Amino acid sequence: MIEIERKFIVKNQSFKEEIHTKSIVFQGYLSSNPERTVRVRIKNEKGYLTIKGISNESGTSRYEWEKEIPLVEAKELFKLCEKGAITKTRYEIPFGNHTYEVDEFYGDNEGLIIAEIELSSENEKFDKPNWLGDEVTGEQRYYNSNLIILPFKEW
Amino acid sequence: MIEIERKFIVKNQSFKEEIHTKSIVFQGYLSSNPERTVRVRIKNEKGYLTIKGISNESGTSRYEWEKEIPLVEAKELFKLCEKGAITKTRYEIPFGNHTYEVDEFYGDNEGLIIAEIELSSENEKFDKPNWLGDEVTGEQRYYNSNLIILPFKEW
Repeated sequence: MIEIERKFIVKNQSFKEEIHTKSIVFQGYLSSNPERTVRVRIKNEKGYLTIKGISNESGTSRYEWEKEIPLVEAKELFKLCEKGAITKTRYEIPFGNHTYEVDEFYGDNEGLIIAEIELSSENEKFDKPNWLGDEVTGEQRYYNSNLIILPFKEW
Repeated sequence: MIEIERKFIVKNQSFKEEIHTKSIVFQGYLSSNPERTVRVRIKNEKGYLTIKGISNESGTSRYEWEKEIPLVEAKELFKLCEKGAITKTRYEIPFGNHTYEVDEFYGDNEGLIIAEIELSSENEKFDKPNWLGDEVTGEQRYYNSNLIILPFKEW
């Protein structure tokens, strides 16, 4: 299906004061080509395989296919991935009529915190919490697949 | 799991005289990188997603992960694939204690017929039918992912 998402910098740690859930996420890529990204993810000890197509011009919408797979298989597929991996904590924060997914990165991307919001249409309105910073939707260097190749600490 | 396979040229059409089943196969690649091949296949109106690792030195064994997926999703993923596709008829031919999978290619690979046999160990013995020709196990140009890039008619 087509996913519509917008992405923002998170200005400070105050988002942790909101009600949230928290998960550890590890992910690697079988293909980091933005025309056909193939991602292996382990989140809360569950495995997922995700395939994404290329974004539209504004960077807001993209075809996405995802299946849960057994953890043991996700670990096997991890070994096949391109060099490098992403480690982050994901916070899910309900706000207004939506839920922000906030990713706090570790390793070579330490210091980077990104929020994403999924929308049902390109022009859907949404409320912005005060910790939300500049919009970076469609900026390729913020793609997780690119944060492996050129991590935040090298920007 | 690790798949052990050997691959041969098929010399003539006499394999069709043996007892066999027959399916039409279409397949494309989300990644044709031999270190992490990601294949979308439609066979008998069923969809499959297959991920393969790199072969061992002799070309006989390779990690392989496969899941059946809904046909409609396979068709969506096909649109994301790298340019080009493979079309072939697959014959399954029981012979001795094994089953040969014989692929008769179409389009730019017309004229190419390949047989594969799956073994349970590297040195397992197997019977060879008289239509079986030279072994091509591990020869990269016979990889289906490479037959898209450099098809048989251009050899």
